[in-house]
Amino acid sequence: MTQQATLIAGAWREAPAGTPTLASLNPATGEALPDTYPVSDWVNLEAALYAARAAQAQLLARPDWAEALAGFLEGYAAQLEARADALVEMAHLETALPREPRLKAVELPRTIAQLRLAAAAAREPSWRQATLDTRGKLRSYFAPLDGPVFVLGANNFPFAFNGVAGGDMAAALASGHPVLTKAHPGHLGTSRLLAEAAWAALQAGDLPPALMQMIYHLAPEDGLRLVAHPLLGATAFTGSRAVGVRLKAAADAAGKPIYLELSAINPVFFLPGALAERGPALVDEYVASGLLGAGQFCTNPGLLLLVDDAAGRAFVDGVAAKFAAAKPGVLLSANAPEQLRQAVAALHAHGAEVVVGGQPVPGPASCFNNTLLRVSGDAFLAEPEALQREAFGPTGLVVLARDADQLAAIAEVLEGNLTGSFYTHTGAADDALYARLAPVVRRKVGRLLNDKMPTGVAVSPAMMHGGPYPSSGHPGFTSVGLPASMRRFAALQCFDNVRPDRLPPELRDVNPTGRMWRLIDGGWTQGDVPAA
Amino acid sequence: MTQQATLIAGAWREAPAGTPTLASLNPATGEALPDTYPVSDWVNLEAALYAARAAQAQLLARPDWAEALAGFLEGYAAQLEARADALVEMAHLETALPREPRLKAVELPRTIAQLRLAAAAAREPSWRQATLDTRGKLRSYFAPLDGPVFVLGANNFPFAFNGVAGGDMAAALASGHPVLTKAHPGHLGTSRLLAEAAWAALQAGDLPPALMQMIYHLAPEDGLRLVAHPLLGATAFTGSRAVGVRLKAAADAAGKPIYLELSAINPVFFLPGALAERGPALVDEYVASGLLGAGQFCTNPGLLLLVDDAAGRAFVDGVAAKFAAAKPGVLLSANAPEQLRQAVAALHAHGAEVVVGGQPVPGPASCFNNTLLRVSGDAFLAEPEALQREAFGPTGLVVLARDADQLAAIAEVLEGNLTGSFYTHTGAADDALYARLAPVVRRKVGRLLNDKMPTGVAVSPAMMHGGPYPSSGHPGFTSVGLPASMRRFAALQCFDNVRPDRLPPELRDVNPTGRMWRLIDGGWTQGDVPAA
Repeated sequence: MTQQATLIAGAWREAPAGTPTLASLNPATGEALPDTYPVSDWVNLEAALYAARAAQAQLLARPDWAEALAGFLEGYAAQLEARADALVEMAHLETALPREPRLKAVELPRTIAQLRLAAAAAREPSWRQATLDTRGKLRSYFAPLDGPVFVLGANNFPFAFNGVAGGDMAAALASGHPVLTKAHPGHLGTSRLLAEAAWAALQAGDLPPALMQMIYHLAPEDGLRLVAHPLLGATAFTGSRAVGVRLKAAADAAGKPIYLELSAINPVFFLPGALAERGPALVDEYVASGLLGAGQFCTNPGLLLLVDDAAGRAFVDGVAAKFAAAKPGVLLSANAPEQLRQAVAALHAHGAEVVVGGQPVPGPASCFNNTLLRVSGDAFLAEPEALQREAFGPTGLVVLARDADQLAAIAEVLEGNLTGSFYTHTGAADDALYARLAPVVRRKVGRLLNDKMPTGVAVSPAMMHGGPYPSSGHPGFTSVGLPASMRRFAALQCFDNVRPDRLPPELRDVNPTGRMWRLIDGGWTQGDVPAA
Repeated sequence: MTQQATLIAGAWREAPAGTPTLASLNPATGEALPDTYPVSDWVNLEAALYAARAAQAQLLARPDWAEALAGFLEGYAAQLEARADALVEMAHLETALPREPRLKAVELPRTIAQLRLAAAAAREPSWRQATLDTRGKLRSYFAPLDGPVFVLGANNFPFAFNGVAGGDMAAALASGHPVLTKAHPGHLGTSRLLAEAAWAALQAGDLPPALMQMIYHLAPEDGLRLVAHPLLGATAFTGSRAVGVRLKAAADAAGKPIYLELSAINPVFFLPGALAERGPALVDEYVASGLLGAGQFCTNPGLLLLVDDAAGRAFVDGVAAKFAAAKPGVLLSANAPEQLRQAVAALHAHGAEVVVGGQPVPGPASCFNNTLLRVSGDAFLAEPEALQREAFGPTGLVVLARDADQLAAIAEVLEGNLTGSFYTHTGAADDALYARLAPVVRRKVGRLLNDKMPTGVAVSPAMMHGGPYPSSGHPGFTSVGLPASMRRFAALQCFDNVRPDRLPPELRDVNPTGRMWRLIDGGWTQGDVPAA
């Protein structure tokens, strides 16, 4: 067993003997992997925070800080490319996600592309929304928060949502913040390899070495202290509702921004016309999306809403057959099957019937049978809260509404979600019902889809990966999409009557890049302030 | 005594006998004014919430909701204009603020102008920041929050920051939300007159009658329930830190957005060159700003930072003389003098010396002597937290730093504030020190000023009236400035692959107004999506 080191204050620190440790498990075999990883104590965490704080001061004192960060992000991307094979192998061992296509052809390239997009976003100051009121001598823009960002990544994407390499880290860094990142216990070794790549990129440049730090784990009470620490700028968390809500309470009490991506069940409405028109195709589409990554996507379509007619029942039968026929994927952690068993049991206790699956798969691998549950609209409306419990894995709950009116009643009781989807007839057959349901669902979700499954989350400036609580902590922010996700880590700063030579370049009369978009006296322009 | 009615669910409701009531006091005489005002109970509050919720659904179902709201805001403004004399008289009685120029020539016109600016902002959908990724078939914009907004106004501006007529109300309404407003106990009658004006404007149109509701008071525990209520969209609060923090905890725990404007002491640095160059003029400028409204501005310059040299001591002497000579203004409430006495005593207990003032003025009027305190840089650095306590009124604390280095050390320990100001030599004498101090202060305040007092808060798109905690609840939002302040009450909504005819007009290919600014494929434009 080798005990690995944490990256704190510009050095790989070995933990002293006696430090509590974690190990990674291979969920495909249930066996421990060879390395161990220390739990960082408060002394180390506070050292990291002070180092990050000093690094931010040093960083922002450079007039070219955004360019320097962009260079680092590109260097990091190149390091990941060069280390792809080792990263994919380690992530596969730790998560059992397939090497191909998932890890090597999809997730790692997406992660690398996202770092490059973040570099481009850092270079393009238009995201700062410089607003000039020349007559009032008031000029404002978004500026970095005062302090580093603590990033806690998710379990389900060892690269793309890893605290060390994912979207939150990239957005926080590109917007001017050193990051203190925490590995997820599900992929400690992958996180170490990512941090090593980042470290190599850092050493190749001249940025403060504490720009990026990485720990593996910390005591829960230290996490609560950290998110509330006066020196911290903000926290970004993707994970379980239970943990997220505790962190949120601690950060909120200290007035510290915290951005959360929590649970979601992503309702999908299959309207009667669509099912009558192309039911079998929709079965295929749903099954492919619902079982993607063994159902462990935050945008997994977990709640299916349809009318209990012949086409609706045929859809359920079709899905059940495909779920039964598909080989269950290996789950991300050893305790996932038991958690799923409990979640399914809870749904069952509140009136849902198991159509297919419902039990862990015996054997060493961490597997759960692909599971479809069904409940009547009446039963759902009787216990809407209990039946909106997330079952994170290859599971779906179908609600069979008596009729369109009941479907509308169900739409009204849906909780906040990341996404909401509608499948409708390609002609006009479902238009009236869509017009009735969509406005209700629209206000409860961040992203509304037509004729498309929600699992894909494009890194687009128009993406919204977030939504009303409890899917996230604030409905006005997205955690995916550049530069939109950077706006979370920004303070609005106004300069009032400040002498022209003391203004930051982004707010001076002359456009600093010749192409930065600025809102000058009510109109967006890439030009300079017109001469008086 | 006449007991006044609340405006709930489109009707003026009389409270039943036995309902607890409040009365207004005239702070100039200490005498109760003739009317009484009921405390609304939970039954009424929940009725208001349900009515507001239904009103929002009805409102947003209208394609022309923004135009309709603009019409209401303009009608409301006209009603206020027509009722100016009665409003000014009542506000003067309740707050003792001077009729002229403050109430009639300054604050009421500002309030009316702000309603008209809000009407214009409602009509101009550019604030929604429509973002179109045409290739990705993703389109997003800011949309109203799901639910009405609860607005609790401040005590210090009976019109401009009144929950019933002020900036928070205007921003919440203009962005698509019915508002449930609460009067401040310091101007109950003024709030009633404002609500009557709003009601007259509402009746002249065809908007839902519960678009605007008004209560006078509620039990503290009901306030905590209300801000956390599932049907509420958000809360906007301006007031004391103690109350704000309690409301914030309740709203945060329920995942409900809450925007707070809390305490601020608005540090002002007078650098040595400026004092040497034009000390007497700066005395005048500070005294005028510091005593404006008897010091009861959230942007009151309460903390003065200077070097303990001859010019610095002359500045203190000059201010002390003018403070002693100026007639103390009447404060907003009867208990204000005692609160100020306690605040001054607390500052004194932590090492501040009273230079002038420090005691209530005897007599029936609610008055406190204009008060200047002084503390050494050493003492300030020893107890920075205690010495940053707000003393809301005609008070200022001067910190006399040993030298520039100590001034820099003091800048480092400043808490989050709405504003920070620098007075510097008109030549280059203070440039080096400014360059050292300004970046430190910049990250701690929402608005940074040069050679200007912070008391004025222009309603500009580039204004930032907010700042790092504890001056507000989130450093990324402003409560003044249109349309910027509307962004607080907005959810980011993405449409993914949604059929073109189902998109809202703001996100369709054709620009709905021909001049709305939209970010299409990376560039801001007032044009349509170019034909493929």
